[in-house]
Amino acid sequence: MTQPTYDRVALIGLGLIASSMFWAMKRAGFAGTVTGYARSEATRDTARRIGLTDRVCDSAAEAVEGADLVVLAVPVGAMGQVAEEIAPCLKPGATLTDVGSVKGHVVDTVAPHVPEGVHFVPAHPMAGTEHSGPEAGFAELFDNRWCLIVPPEGTDRQAIERLAEFWHMLGANTEEMDPEHHDLVCAVVSHIPHIIAYTMVGVADDLRRVSEQEVIKFSAAGFRDFTRIAASDPTMWRDVFLTNKKATLEILGRFTEELFALQRAIRTGDGQHLFDYFTRTRAIRRGIIEAGQDTDAPDFGRVKVEK
Amino acid sequence: MTQPTYDRVALIGLGLIASSMFWAMKRAGFAGTVTGYARSEATRDTARRIGLTDRVCDSAAEAVEGADLVVLAVPVGAMGQVAEEIAPCLKPGATLTDVGSVKGHVVDTVAPHVPEGVHFVPAHPMAGTEHSGPEAGFAELFDNRWCLIVPPEGTDRQAIERLAEFWHMLGANTEEMDPEHHDLVCAVVSHIPHIIAYTMVGVADDLRRVSEQEVIKFSAAGFRDFTRIAASDPTMWRDVFLTNKKATLEILGRFTEELFALQRAIRTGDGQHLFDYFTRTRAIRRGIIEAGQDTDAPDFGRVKVEK
Repeated sequence: MTQPTYDRVALIGLGLIASSMFWAMKRAGFAGTVTGYARSEATRDTARRIGLTDRVCDSAAEAVEGADLVVLAVPVGAMGQVAEEIAPCLKPGATLTDVGSVKGHVVDTVAPHVPEGVHFVPAHPMAGTEHSGPEAGFAELFDNRWCLIVPPEGTDRQAIERLAEFWHMLGANTEEMDPEHHDLVCAVVSHIPHIIAYTMVGVADDLRRVSEQEVIKFSAAGFRDFTRIAASDPTMWRDVFLTNKKATLEILGRFTEELFALQRAIRTGDGQHLFDYFTRTRAIRRGIIEAGQDTDAPDFGRVKVEK
Repeated sequence: MTQPTYDRVALIGLGLIASSMFWAMKRAGFAGTVTGYARSEATRDTARRIGLTDRVCDSAAEAVEGADLVVLAVPVGAMGQVAEEIAPCLKPGATLTDVGSVKGHVVDTVAPHVPEGVHFVPAHPMAGTEHSGPEAGFAELFDNRWCLIVPPEGTDRQAIERLAEFWHMLGANTEEMDPEHHDLVCAVVSHIPHIIAYTMVGVADDLRRVSEQEVIKFSAAGFRDFTRIAASDPTMWRDVFLTNKKATLEILGRFTEELFALQRAIRTGDGQHLFDYFTRTRAIRRGIIEAGQDTDAPDFGRVKVEK
């Protein structure tokens, strides 16, 4: 490691991401102290019960006091308010980061509150599961995943590299990106897939002529793959779409354009168009498996393969 | 078992489904003989090499000779032609079935060729993986999945029940359904999810401002769930959409209607609409897991959960 890691880390928000960060730090033998805070008392109680963070605090101000790294792990829509609340308590020289899925909005709403002498280095670990809350975390969540570091212009280079080292310790790879490009990339690989999955599941739930029992029983034919991400945290995703409006609407426009072209091919019986399209999409799957970002086990390894 | 199983089974087409049927028969201790035929010589060679079926034949006619059960496991668009070819060779009293994903079209194109005295009992095992070909099959594919039996009116009751017993032997549950309802249910749980997944992957592949490398690297954020089913066999899926046009276009219409409503909520900043929609879709996921049709392991069990 080229940089010393932090002595004191504060996790603000104790959901899937923050709890996974804590377990990954433990796994790595992190020697410092980790404090935690969650707005909900029930979440704080759960965190205390399962030993999530070394000290669960009853206020954000208390949690961040003396911390070298403060991680905002709350829904994107709440980041600005939390930043405003903790700003006076931040230690000079500390790094303030976040794990939000939208970066333009976070920069716009958090940066104005960051005091002189505190390094604001936004980041986004691109990993998650369909489960949420303090008990959903696990140490391996970030292994071989990417954490995007999205520093505003002029951010201290050493603070950026120190945060990157921290994420490497948690198992992730890191890459730097500017906020606008980040939000477009995430619209493509994350936000639009989620809105589409939510839509598909909503449609199936809403049909009169096909019962919910039928949808559930026969879901293995493709539908169930959508239901995993459509079970993701509603608050988090509401905020993502409200705050990444521009890129989301742009990619949605491209999506419906393509979908209408395929719909037209179905209507007109243009088998060649369909075949060519379906052939092209296989290649990208191979790329994902070669990059170690998914398993090649049939059916995601849901069934054992033994002949 | 209430019915005796078959003595001689012929598998016409040796892809994922037929090969899984063979391995599932072996696993069940099926005592009869299984013949196989595939149009492609390369597939027949592979089948011989891996011991797929007891005897690989060089013509469909040879394979079906003397068979008590003949299974058409070819793309939906080829079913009618294959049925016409083998019709003169079918044994009186035999059952002819298929495994196609669209049933109205199969009934329309196969039934006219079925000779007097042969029982035509269409079926559809709702199971699959993203892999295809003779080497993709495995014995567990149908375990706890549903095989829909879709007999035309007037089909011999004993022939239907015998085929259902056969599928139970392979590990599947069975349910009867009429062709029109079958095709609508499958549009919802299978065909539309596939066309949407293909579209999403196609859009990502086609963008200028986000590179393919970025899409691949960061796919764990949601996108990769779509790529599994978008890697399915192009020929099979072309035929599905060409032959289940009516139901596909109906459900696609519903899908775009819902998507536009969510898009409007994003544009107008209607967070409550988004939150309510995203909350509703969680329940259907729970139903699927309770029904044993998916795993509750985070992230499909792609990563181990150990704290």
